[in-house]
Amino acid sequence: MSKLAPDILAERYGSHVSFPDSVLEHQSSAIETILAHRSVRSYDTKPLEPGILELLVAAAESASTSSNLHCYSIIAVQDTKRKQELSIICGSQQHIIDAPLFLLFCADLARLKSICDRQVGPAAGLDYTEMFVMAVVDAALAAQNLAIAAESLGLGMCYIGGARNHPAKIAEFFDLPSRVFGVFGMTIGYPLTHAEEVKPRMPQTGGILHFEKYDPDYGPALAEYEETMKEFNDTMPGREGRGWLAQTAQRVGTPESLGAERPSIKQFLTEAELDLL
Amino acid sequence: MSKLAPDILAERYGSHVSFPDSVLEHQSSAIETILAHRSVRSYDTKPLEPGILELLVAAAESASTSSNLHCYSIIAVQDTKRKQELSIICGSQQHIIDAPLFLLFCADLARLKSICDRQVGPAAGLDYTEMFVMAVVDAALAAQNLAIAAESLGLGMCYIGGARNHPAKIAEFFDLPSRVFGVFGMTIGYPLTHAEEVKPRMPQTGGILHFEKYDPDYGPALAEYEETMKEFNDTMPGREGRGWLAQTAQRVGTPESLGAERPSIKQFLTEAELDLL
Repeated sequence: MSKLAPDILAERYGSHVSFPDSVLEHQSSAIETILAHRSVRSYDTKPLEPGILELLVAAAESASTSSNLHCYSIIAVQDTKRKQELSIICGSQQHIIDAPLFLLFCADLARLKSICDRQVGPAAGLDYTEMFVMAVVDAALAAQNLAIAAESLGLGMCYIGGARNHPAKIAEFFDLPSRVFGVFGMTIGYPLTHAEEVKPRMPQTGGILHFEKYDPDYGPALAEYEETMKEFNDTMPGREGRGWLAQTAQRVGTPESLGAERPSIKQFLTEAELDLL
Repeated sequence: MSKLAPDILAERYGSHVSFPDSVLEHQSSAIETILAHRSVRSYDTKPLEPGILELLVAAAESASTSSNLHCYSIIAVQDTKRKQELSIICGSQQHIIDAPLFLLFCADLARLKSICDRQVGPAAGLDYTEMFVMAVVDAALAAQNLAIAAESLGLGMCYIGGARNHPAKIAEFFDLPSRVFGVFGMTIGYPLTHAEEVKPRMPQTGGILHFEKYDPDYGPALAEYEETMKEFNDTMPGREGRGWLAQTAQRVGTPESLGAERPSIKQFLTEAELDLL
């Protein structure tokens, strides 16, 4: 088995972060694809080759789905006029128009409700937060499989959290029935350039990764990540001198800072009979 | 580029489901790993080779994270005695004890709260369902990257929804602070056998995949999947004659059918200051 290139970890964590040599002993083509991820926001408008959408959806469906309940749906938008309208709802992002494919990933308990009705049985379990969480997780696992599959074919992709900007408008745009929630979108297409940056991530130990018990001593990892992001932003025209901590605190400080109508998601979910109990 | 083997799609969707030939024109090693996924519940107890955990976490962290907020944490359990206790909380699953590594994936807004406090700013946005959804999605995207990376190295893995069976016990077991929720677990290790089945999935069109708008006409896809699951179960000792629809309706019919204390997740989240507004 060939070795993993050290550069790929340096790009992901910043060049000053070191890993034990043993990390480089393990390697696969899938891991190289995964570690090289960068979000693409600049696409050629040419359509995807035939067969790709079906293969990507097969990849999505191959993800685990809790208790084999399939609590999610994927809605593909390829119509140019609809992508233009959608772009506005999601915060006027040009790449939603340019990318040949937009996918909406939905937490979907409507299909299960329909099955309960067909079986002439109760559907009371669907009202619970447990099922809402399960559906959001199902949608996300499927989406990430699809993202990796797309990137492994040389396609670019970008998650669109802006699909939560106006949940009721999204529901209307897609004819979503009760018990369906558009969790996020995704653009997919052929990247115009390969110039997008790999964004550095937080240190593992003391940051994302804990051992045996949760460790709230974030201080050193946060300080290290602040330095990494400052170095990274200094290489980005217009972002020089910016760190991560101040911007992050602002991003989540108030309901308004969440953006658009995102603070009203609970109200939308209640009306859609999701996450009730 | 070599072609995708047709068998891999037949195993995933049932042999009677056909795809256009163009699907097979696209192929990658990552896609082969993704399509071949099966959950592994039978592990050798030998520990993971050095470096693998760090590489898997690097894969997890390479997933997109909404607004670069990193709203998740991963807690690794390798201590045998703790895995035994954990197995009981999660519904007495032997493979939690046998697998050398258990990972708990947490939706984590505590780190962001700590950052807001350090920046001496408000943290009111964290109370909103928007941020809870974002955190659950972040955790799931990271987990699925980690799962694919593990499988690409020949390791086996299985999601553990049972980590939601007793949310307060999990919080105590892992010392989780407020604003952290254990969304699901994962076992990882060297598979004892490669005999686990690939579980068939619902047809794409009319099932999971919609075009332009949500299509609630599930009937044909559900009927087809019922047949596929009956054929599949007929090959499984002890599952002969079972379909999918009746079992699925029962699984979600009542709060009790959700299992253990899963109907109390909302109460847990409220006490943990998550998903409030």
